[in-house]
Amino acid sequence: MTKAAGGSDDKAVKVPLNDLVSDGGCPVMAAPDAMPSDTLYYWDYLHLDYLLNAQTPKSEEAGELVHDEYFFIVVHQTYELWFKQILVELDSVMAIMAQERIPGRELGTVLSRLRRINQIQRLMVGQMDVLETMTPLDFLDFRSLLLPASGFQSVQFRLIENKFGLLERDRLHIEGHNYVATLRDDHGQMVILSEQTPSLFDHVETWLARLPFVRTESYDFATEYEKAASEMHAVGRAKIEGHPNLNDDARRKQLEAFESSVRRFGAVFDKESWAQDVREGGRRFSYDAFMAALFLNLYREEPLLQVPFQILEVLIDIDEILTLWRQRHALMAHRMLGRITGSAGSGYAYLDETAKRYMPFKDLFDVATYLVSRAERPPLPASLFSGADGLSW
Amino acid sequence: MTKAAGGSDDKAVKVPLNDLVSDGGCPVMAAPDAMPSDTLYYWDYLHLDYLLNAQTPKSEEAGELVHDEYFFIVVHQTYELWFKQILVELDSVMAIMAQERIPGRELGTVLSRLRRINQIQRLMVGQMDVLETMTPLDFLDFRSLLLPASGFQSVQFRLIENKFGLLERDRLHIEGHNYVATLRDDHGQMVILSEQTPSLFDHVETWLARLPFVRTESYDFATEYEKAASEMHAVGRAKIEGHPNLNDDARRKQLEAFESSVRRFGAVFDKESWAQDVREGGRRFSYDAFMAALFLNLYREEPLLQVPFQILEVLIDIDEILTLWRQRHALMAHRMLGRITGSAGSGYAYLDETAKRYMPFKDLFDVATYLVSRAERPPLPASLFSGADGLSW
Amino acid sequence: MTKAAGGSDDKAVKVPLNDLVSDGGCPVMAAPDAMPSDTLYYWDYLHLDYLLNAQTPKSEEAGELVHDEYFFIVVHQTYELWFKQILVELDSVMAIMAQERIPGRELGTVLSRLRRINQIQRLMVGQMDVLETMTPLDFLDFRSLLLPASGFQSVQFRLIENKFGLLERDRLHIEGHNYVATLRDDHGQMVILSEQTPSLFDHVETWLARLPFVRTESYDFATEYEKAASEMHAVGRAKIEGHPNLNDDARRKQLEAFESSVRRFGAVFDKESWAQDVREGGRRFSYDAFMAALFLNLYREEPLLQVPFQILEVLIDIDEILTLWRQRHALMAHRMLGRITGSAGSGYAYLDETAKRYMPFKDLFDVATYLVSRAERPPLPASLFSGADGLSW
Amino acid sequence: MTKAAGGSDDKAVKVPLNDLVSDGGCPVMAAPDAMPSDTLYYWDYLHLDYLLNAQTPKSEEAGELVHDEYFFIVVHQTYELWFKQILVELDSVMAIMAQERIPGRELGTVLSRLRRINQIQRLMVGQMDVLETMTPLDFLDFRSLLLPASGFQSVQFRLIENKFGLLERDRLHIEGHNYVATLRDDHGQMVILSEQTPSLFDHVETWLARLPFVRTESYDFATEYEKAASEMHAVGRAKIEGHPNLNDDARRKQLEAFESSVRRFGAVFDKESWAQDVREGGRRFSYDAFMAALFLNLYREEPLLQVPFQILEVLIDIDEILTLWRQRHALMAHRMLGRITGSAGSGYAYLDETAKRYMPFKDLFDVATYLVSRAERPPLPASLFSGADGLSW
Repeated sequence: MTKAAGGSDDKAVKVPLNDLVSDGGCPVMAAPDAMPSDTLYYWDYLHLDYLLNAQTPKSEEAGELVHDEYFFIVVHQTYELWFKQILVELDSVMAIMAQERIPGRELGTVLSRLRRINQIQRLMVGQMDVLETMTPLDFLDFRSLLLPASGFQSVQFRLIENKFGLLERDRLHIEGHNYVATLRDDHGQMVILSEQTPSLFDHVETWLARLPFVRTESYDFATEYEKAASEMHAVGRAKIEGHPNLNDDARRKQLEAFESSVRRFGAVFDKESWAQDVREGGRRFSYDAFMAALFLNLYREEPLLQVPFQILEVLIDIDEILTLWRQRHALMAHRMLGRITGSAGSGYAYLDETAKRYMPFKDLFDVATYLVSRAERPPLPASLFSGADGLSW
Repeated sequence: MTKAAGGSDDKAVKVPLNDLVSDGGCPVMAAPDAMPSDTLYYWDYLHLDYLLNAQTPKSEEAGELVHDEYFFIVVHQTYELWFKQILVELDSVMAIMAQERIPGRELGTVLSRLRRINQIQRLMVGQMDVLETMTPLDFLDFRSLLLPASGFQSVQFRLIENKFGLLERDRLHIEGHNYVATLRDDHGQMVILSEQTPSLFDHVETWLARLPFVRTESYDFATEYEKAASEMHAVGRAKIEGHPNLNDDARRKQLEAFESSVRRFGAVFDKESWAQDVREGGRRFSYDAFMAALFLNLYREEPLLQVPFQILEVLIDIDEILTLWRQRHALMAHRMLGRITGSAGSGYAYLDETAKRYMPFKDLFDVATYLVSRAERPPLPASLFSGADGLSW
Repeated sequence: MTKAAGGSDDKAVKVPLNDLVSDGGCPVMAAPDAMPSDTLYYWDYLHLDYLLNAQTPKSEEAGELVHDEYFFIVVHQTYELWFKQILVELDSVMAIMAQERIPGRELGTVLSRLRRINQIQRLMVGQMDVLETMTPLDFLDFRSLLLPASGFQSVQFRLIENKFGLLERDRLHIEGHNYVATLRDDHGQMVILSEQTPSLFDHVETWLARLPFVRTESYDFATEYEKAASEMHAVGRAKIEGHPNLNDDARRKQLEAFESSVRRFGAVFDKESWAQDVREGGRRFSYDAFMAALFLNLYREEPLLQVPFQILEVLIDIDEILTLWRQRHALMAHRMLGRITGSAGSGYAYLDETAKRYMPFKDLFDVATYLVSRAERPPLPASLFSGADGLSW
Repeated sequence: MTKAAGGSDDKAVKVPLNDLVSDGGCPVMAAPDAMPSDTLYYWDYLHLDYLLNAQTPKSEEAGELVHDEYFFIVVHQTYELWFKQILVELDSVMAIMAQERIPGRELGTVLSRLRRINQIQRLMVGQMDVLETMTPLDFLDFRSLLLPASGFQSVQFRLIENKFGLLERDRLHIEGHNYVATLRDDHGQMVILSEQTPSLFDHVETWLARLPFVRTESYDFATEYEKAASEMHAVGRAKIEGHPNLNDDARRKQLEAFESSVRRFGAVFDKESWAQDVREGGRRFSYDAFMAALFLNLYREEPLLQVPFQILEVLIDIDEILTLWRQRHALMAHRMLGRITGSAGSGYAYLDETAKRYMPFKDLFDVATYLVSRAERPPLPASLFSGADGLSW
């Protein structure tokens, strides 16, 4: 790997970002200051010479430093450092999940690294409180100097979106332009590559679809579940039909509402129309993957399913907090920039709209729609988990 | 100020950190990559080529990258970026407060920058949640490679401590050594310089002592306050003496406790013994500064005192959250390193002990000891704030 | 004060606390224990006999306690206690602001109480993390027992919305029904009354519109500001017209965009069309109130304006965090209930939609649209603040 | 279940909610309004008649309501509601763990309920930010009216401490008095009972000591671990002895330090002296329990150990956050009360001192002391986990 930032005699060697993040490896660093050869010093280990000199306010170049520009830079730099770390964790999780079968002993690692991502995200939301100590008037004092640069150009954030599983088809287009258009060529290529490479979503989907317990030679979860749901619905129907306090009109209305909800529930038993929904973009998880997610939610007490269920939970947490970050970001942009599009290259409305659309794991939120309560849950066959097979799939 | 990062024709201009912050040495900045001359790109503005390449894990140099070392580095780098920003804010506040008289229109700036410091500190505490996603076993996989480097060597953190007002005499000494001994020479000199330069504490103390309303030609707050306290105490004493439910023994005990608390309260009226306490290290604020703090607490509703009172509040907030950060840090070190001193060069016990001792503004916490309730508070003279004098002191 | 519950003719059933906590069940409400008449006991002061017996899970009544229902109740009860406290603070702030002139010495109180509301709101958002420890399957085990009760019926939350300033015309209607329809009669009447009583928004608007400095005999802010803006725009226009790198087509496009933004900016100088916007619901603040908000943002350094500006800031904070709470609430509902409307009587889509529409102080966010930078800001007349008049308006 | 309060023969006094909230005053507790018999209403389900009328400020009884007393009450009431919920979760976890063998399928429940406790604790820490919106002067206006009541009398908090595992012998005594002395008789008895009943600590210790994999017929973890440690130490010793850059004196010092750390490490292999430490109060976990904790930390990747390891982690989290809450509480008391013991019946020094001493699971923090890195970790026998035995112990 080439030097990242060299002296004046370097040919300004360019280091593709994905070299850095994809394997967690790190290229050579420009030579540190001469230090005693056998001791390591905190300052040098962290390369603080680079970090603490990497703030070069445009207002200062223009003749008069605006106090808050320094702050503005540091806020964005810490965000980018965290983005990098998210990418490092994400890549390592995907490397594990890309295996044909994932050993049970690696699931704990998957879980803890996804949790770490979630903790970083929480910090990122909290960081908005810090950013909002800057007022719109303070920002105006240097905002025009930054044009046309914009947070919209954060290539790492685009990589995070794509690697989580955001689809190009779901992205909003700004004045008809693809988001890649604002990026430097090499960054654009990295982003496009990440669109074409399996995402965390893809790996999770494949892994779920492989879950061995959902259908065995002697057991089919879907069949059992449909039977249980059907009995539950029959009871509900009878209750409305026989309810003494309902007049005919009220009864008809209630029955209509009830049958409509029964039909919605039934979606989970119609593999064909599910596939159709997926093709049309209404859902993303394949039928098999979704049924596995449902199964894990219903039977999470089983020792072999406890950690896989926790993985589903943290994926929801990640999608939820990313959405909250987008919403918070939108509000911050509104109060900072008003409603004319500003240096962020993107206005409040855009940011707010992305919040709702950009949730790769939305299907996991929908699982709740298709659950029955524990009392109505069909029992599992006694021997389902016997054999060590379950440890790895 | 010289340019922080120059073009290829620059002679690798040296930018001392203190130009940026205040005085912390920083060596040459490598030249940034060539960029189109008339557009600014987000990546370049933030110098992400430097930032995102500045993670060089020792475990990778030693032959095999330990996943969590990358994370460990990023956590510390973001901390150091925030430390830098705290220093930037702190220096700017001190520059304002170093004036002979501080114009009222600059107090709002002082307040909002201190608040920003406080928000950054809150984030720093939250960041411990992120750091604790690393387990002791994960740390052990690369911990020995970092020796003898240690967070104890964070020169920026030492500068923050000193600039807030931590005194060398209050520092704990590690095995008899001064904390400067672990630093590189130039860093050590910066730290020593910061010990010898007026701190935020010093500026606040001087500013408080100048508060014009505490004593005028016709009014002396201390006299009025002593009278009010004395009346309040007489009432309290009479209550115990005349209480029907107390036998002689109980009455004597209660009176003893009461008189002891009256004596403690009286400390605030004895300028001489107060000065003695300051000389002996029991207190830090001069008598005049403390009385002004008391005055601001009691009469904060007055329009001219509202913002000064808020400044006192945020100073307490800052001291409190820094203490909480130290305590959290100590607990983290305990769970990460156990109780043998580890790579941090400092153990749980040390960190925990600093938390209680290192509070420069502790006297502001003590103000509560000497307050009377609003009902007992002596009224202010009607004309105290007439004239524009109050706006600037 | 009369006894809060139970009476001497009750059988005064004694309920040892550990009965309550050990099995999660909740027995009959007990009379408080007799206590010595002249001492106050923590338990009694807080009425913990009532509070800690006020959890009566429906699942237990139905025969088998579901563990998480107890939790579900406590989460909602703490929310309602905080709602109550918000109402207490809000009412006290409105009582101050309802005065014909607000004394400057009461503004500090307004500010600190609004800040308290904001802190409570932050806690309320954090409480979602607690609530989300309950999974959809856990909720299903008792969800149907709660019908038709719903958080939609929280009368206190409706009062908070109305007292902040949410207008009935902006509310979403659920299946054509007014939100009052789900409330008990007396609650409905309280809510309707709150719609008809001046809100915090109304008081803030009136107070801003009274701001004396915006127009005096010798000074008119709007005129000065329009002049400054016009000069600023002339410079911008000239820059585009004379830019050497633009071809005719690009120049025309840029000019179009520029003039469109100039026209938008001009809205702030057209009192008539502003009033029209207000009538049509596009804006809420009267022209005078908005101009005062703009003035406070621009000249916040002035000692007399520092606290009023902080009040505007915390109003934005309050609106922002309430919006975030709604968004978080919507996401929580989605993962807990899926996308079929559940016991909450309101689904994800409804909650999410309210988040964007229900922002009474949205105009304060828009102020950023109409700011100019400090360099372009017209100077204030030297004598504007002379005289004590400014202290109270 | 009997009706919670009031009855049809009550005069059903109607209390409009806005009477309660508009002036902050609190009228008589009213019977709930008559409601349709077969519908459940949110207000009634949550018993809001009780909850929202259970604030009866002493200052109001004394003639003039102090605004902040209402707030003070609500802050404490929400704390007590959360304490109750912690007790509910804690009791349910202890009921599971009290079994002779804990089925693997119940460990997920243990984990998620402990996590919920931890989330509640985090909220409790955040609630300090809310409480600190009250200033010392505000508190003084009603503080004396509350004497001798004190948060020290929170019986629920005492129960939490005891049920987690705080030992009476570790408690600080206030002026020689046991903490029970300040409680009402029945509360005192409950607390004493909780001291005498097995705590969460006890259950965790017993469960750990039963861990089957630490010693089997053909495998003894302690033996293997001692061997590995001994090899690791030999390498370390040789490194120092052969280091070319050390003179005799430096070598001797380094060797001394090294051997001292080896001896400390050796503590984990000396069952007898460990038992002695336990008897003397230096440690709490039995030797077998501690070795199991060590084992779980070292081999947490094993599928059967992933959830047990997570349980250890959350126990540390719980102890850590409780400690942080105590420290935050102490600082809050300092700024609110100064350093004279106040209405809290306990001063800053007391609260701060408890923070460090009251950590039942401190031994789990110490595990880090005795870990070796993965590279030095002895491998597990291949067949250790074969057979279903491991699922339940």
